[in-house]
Amino acid sequence: MKKHNFGAGPGILPQSVIAEAAQAVQDFNHSGLSILEISHRSKDVIAVMDEAEDLVKQLLQIGDDYGVMFLTGGASTQFFMSAMNLLNEDETASFTDTGEWASKAIEEAHNFGKLHIASSSKASGYDHIPTELDIAPNSKYLHITTNNTIYGSQYHFLPKVDCPIVADMSSDIFSRQINGNDYGMIYAGAQKNMGAAGVTLVVVKKSLLGTVKRTLPTMLDYRVHIAKKSSHNTPPVYPIYVSLLTLRWILSEGGLLGMEKRNRAKAELLYNELDRNPLFVPKVKKGSQSWMNATFLTADKAHEPLFTAYCKANGIVGIEGYRTVGGFRASMYNALGLESVQLLVDLMQNFKP
Amino acid sequence: MKKHNFGAGPGILPQSVIAEAAQAVQDFNHSGLSILEISHRSKDVIAVMDEAEDLVKQLLQIGDDYGVMFLTGGASTQFFMSAMNLLNEDETASFTDTGEWASKAIEEAHNFGKLHIASSSKASGYDHIPTELDIAPNSKYLHITTNNTIYGSQYHFLPKVDCPIVADMSSDIFSRQINGNDYGMIYAGAQKNMGAAGVTLVVVKKSLLGTVKRTLPTMLDYRVHIAKKSSHNTPPVYPIYVSLLTLRWILSEGGLLGMEKRNRAKAELLYNELDRNPLFVPKVKKGSQSWMNATFLTADKAHEPLFTAYCKANGIVGIEGYRTVGGFRASMYNALGLESVQLLVDLMQNFKP
Repeated sequence: MKKHNFGAGPGILPQSVIAEAAQAVQDFNHSGLSILEISHRSKDVIAVMDEAEDLVKQLLQIGDDYGVMFLTGGASTQFFMSAMNLLNEDETASFTDTGEWASKAIEEAHNFGKLHIASSSKASGYDHIPTELDIAPNSKYLHITTNNTIYGSQYHFLPKVDCPIVADMSSDIFSRQINGNDYGMIYAGAQKNMGAAGVTLVVVKKSLLGTVKRTLPTMLDYRVHIAKKSSHNTPPVYPIYVSLLTLRWILSEGGLLGMEKRNRAKAELLYNELDRNPLFVPKVKKGSQSWMNATFLTADKAHEPLFTAYCKANGIVGIEGYRTVGGFRASMYNALGLESVQLLVDLMQNFKP
Repeated sequence: MKKHNFGAGPGILPQSVIAEAAQAVQDFNHSGLSILEISHRSKDVIAVMDEAEDLVKQLLQIGDDYGVMFLTGGASTQFFMSAMNLLNEDETASFTDTGEWASKAIEEAHNFGKLHIASSSKASGYDHIPTELDIAPNSKYLHITTNNTIYGSQYHFLPKVDCPIVADMSSDIFSRQINGNDYGMIYAGAQKNMGAAGVTLVVVKKSLLGTVKRTLPTMLDYRVHIAKKSSHNTPPVYPIYVSLLTLRWILSEGGLLGMEKRNRAKAELLYNELDRNPLFVPKVKKGSQSWMNATFLTADKAHEPLFTAYCKANGIVGIEGYRTVGGFRASMYNALGLESVQLLVDLMQNFKP
């Protein structure tokens, strides 16, 4: 039976990417060697790094005033590393608190400067993205989490602010049209929309760097990684290669416009059913519903295990809600096909508890 | 033509590991999904993490008084992270300076406490491992680099000191018999002897933690990673899986005793030829020569490109010396077979410049 992977991450990858990724483990570029056992200083790996950087710039429409890095440690490392590189102790950054990862970003930045909460939806259980923002005067930057994987909310607008925006796009990077130039910094773990676990994309406007007074360990200094093209030390070669294959696939499918059409169609299909079907209730308010992670409940709590079993019996994988919040979460990342969402909707329509 | 991979790292992997690693990309554990696209919270991935940790403990003969972590950022990140977690600003750590990576470890630790150089072979071009040590009184620990990849020297003795030893074993981990209990901390990038690039093994005696006064970012705190079994955030699943496969292979080949026999045989074969053959000169003094990376020169500098071409024509890959030091470097990590070293020795014997 075909598996329909609605997992929240590490998430589904395109079949063509998986096939090429497996081939490279056996024999990379007809070299007679696996990509797992060749030098990061070899011509072929340098070409992988260069092309991955170029495709990121192309998709985000950014130029050489931005640095593109493939780092490790996940978004969780960027929570502190962004503040460490951008914020002095006597300076202020504003943050929006729209979910668990957003609030962790706030916690980790705390040691590096003054923080100001510009908006929060915590009081209502993170069921929406606040549109009103109260930015601190002279904010060095505004940090936002564009998609909240756990709660299933997403920014569908760009905050209008005077300071640079630092955005954690871990769960919606390259899923819709954006202009990279609207951001001072973007970071994202690769394992949802642009590859496998083990690499984190970091894009930063170079002019924002070099303004902090603290001493940075070499491996925590964005300027080092930009100058060394992410190869100051041995980079995570294979995860970067899987990202390259995924970026090529995104381009072959029409780039960000193609992804937006694809993801909009899937989201409309599912949210329309959630609106229509009295057996299910969406968790997030209209206007803030995520295209990536649709969270919902059964109207009758007693139906939850029944629908879970029904999904499982039909090849649907990973649709359980986050462990602390429960219910259902249908993650519909780039690589998930419309036919998988159609199957889920069919199951919702045929569900007879 | 079969390729003989003498590359310094990312280095050669066993063929059986490569075959299994490729299979898991296509279909992991008959799940119908690739290992690249499944949750790190799934039963199957948790089993990978647990088994990898268990095998490390088994190979090092350590118990629960040690924490075992699979982190990212390479040994370069451990250069500062070890000091950050172990050393207060008013405390002293001793270091031996036996090569480029050893001296980078010193540089990066500098911001976190007082450092003392216990020995150095810098003046003689890092051509040996000093046996005399001048440890600072009350050293919190002694940091050593057990194998110096670039210069081709290796510790063949355990320093006798009263303080804990912190060892960077990036290029000789699991290559010979050691007792993990002799060390306060061991760290190693996986990409030479125990897997692919993208994961770093860190083993630390738990009693050494919690003594520093500084505030640690969550992702830089060993205690967090130990408590969360390396899954505080999404770990680099695939690189860890490749390490697990490699650890299983090490055990199937007789564990550390098996690796020691295998690596000793390869090293003796090559170093005997270097002693015997007047066309070649070893770079490192007897007693300090590395089993992992044998560095040598042609006696006549003009022969260097000729021998390079001769090797290449016979399927030998990656034997060039490090870019800043030149000459030759034959890296003979665990997975390299004796037949590859025999071929190299045959070429040295048949070389008619």
